[in-house]
Amino acid sequence: MTLRVLGVDPGLTRCGFGVVDIEPNRRATLVGVTVVGTRADTALEQRLLAISNSIDEWLDRYSPDVLAVERVFSQLNVSTVMGTAQASGVVIAAAARRGITVALHTPTEVKAAVTGNGQADKTAVTKMVTRILRLDRPPTPADAADALALAITHAWRGSTAPVAGSRGQSGSGQTAAQRLWAEAEAKARRKVR
Amino acid sequence: MTLRVLGVDPGLTRCGFGVVDIEPNRRATLVGVTVVGTRADTALEQRLLAISNSIDEWLDRYSPDVLAVERVFSQLNVSTVMGTAQASGVVIAAAARRGITVALHTPTEVKAAVTGNGQADKTAVTKMVTRILRLDRPPTPADAADALALAITHAWRGSTAPVAGSRGQSGSGQTAAQRLWAEAEAKARRKVR
Repeated sequence: MTLRVLGVDPGLTRCGFGVVDIEPNRRATLVGVTVVGTRADTALEQRLLAISNSIDEWLDRYSPDVLAVERVFSQLNVSTVMGTAQASGVVIAAAARRGITVALHTPTEVKAAVTGNGQADKTAVTKMVTRILRLDRPPTPADAADALALAITHAWRGSTAPVAGSRGQSGSGQTAAQRLWAEAEAKARRKVR
Repeated sequence: MTLRVLGVDPGLTRCGFGVVDIEPNRRATLVGVTVVGTRADTALEQRLLAISNSIDEWLDRYSPDVLAVERVFSQLNVSTVMGTAQASGVVIAAAARRGITVALHTPTEVKAAVTGNGQADKTAVTKMVTRILRLDRPPTPADAADALALAITHAWRGSTAPVAGSRGQSGSGQTAAQRLWAEAEAKARRKVR
């Protein structure tokens, strides 16, 4: 059964939404992607209302099985983190009102799941998201890649189904998902070259 | 015309709601007060859903003119501040969806408006809220006093109507509101003793 995940990269200025369908064989397909933006000079309640309206619209339009949201930390970007947390609260409550499962993933978890490296930069994440979703070019708007990466991460981390071609536990310290991504990346690289 | 303000002291574990009617002569009357609590071992989305449902219920029941929310700062209480911000986002979006005006006030503004001292402690705030609302005893639950103080603060700070008995600008550095509270407090003290 295909799992539909709506990934959300929360923020007041840029709030990324990405919907991905993931089949049991882990094949991932892009369904929809956007970035909802509000201007910094707009009143806070109007910014949160815009995000509230957008998430309601996307939840209604795509009926995802799961909402995957970036876990916000107070240590980072102190000037914007409060707005990011407020936006994430609005998005999470919207899913909860519909009885949709909510999952939180840290930026490190997302980077590790998608690239095999928890310290990967934005370019590497975008590159792998483009490959995993079999896109001709990076998803636009560019900021949307993180939301798609969150959706992919959730499906991969959540999956416990045995996977053909898995070589079992290795001593590398990678999770099964990381190992599979590494293999997929290697295969994609061979094809491109 | 009476102004009805719903003050919200946001939080996941304890979210205070206080509704106050304030007449043009600044007489303030308690309309309703509660604290919505969710347990720390409850899933985040269920905690935010509980707050979402409660604020919707209170906005529908009391139809306030204004929602006054505590402005959350990332510097304080790092361990709980993200949840507090998420709760405030949910509450603010609920008011914005109904077209209700939203105002943010800092804890210092609230303390200064209600007690005349921006560094006042919880006991002093509760004491003044009890007096201002002409209650026989402190409002219960005890945590609700901050939400009521927020509502009172909003009405006082927002008001620009001339007030009988005002002595005009003094050199004390107090705002007109702070001066009036100081007078009200002095009067209340004289009555009590």
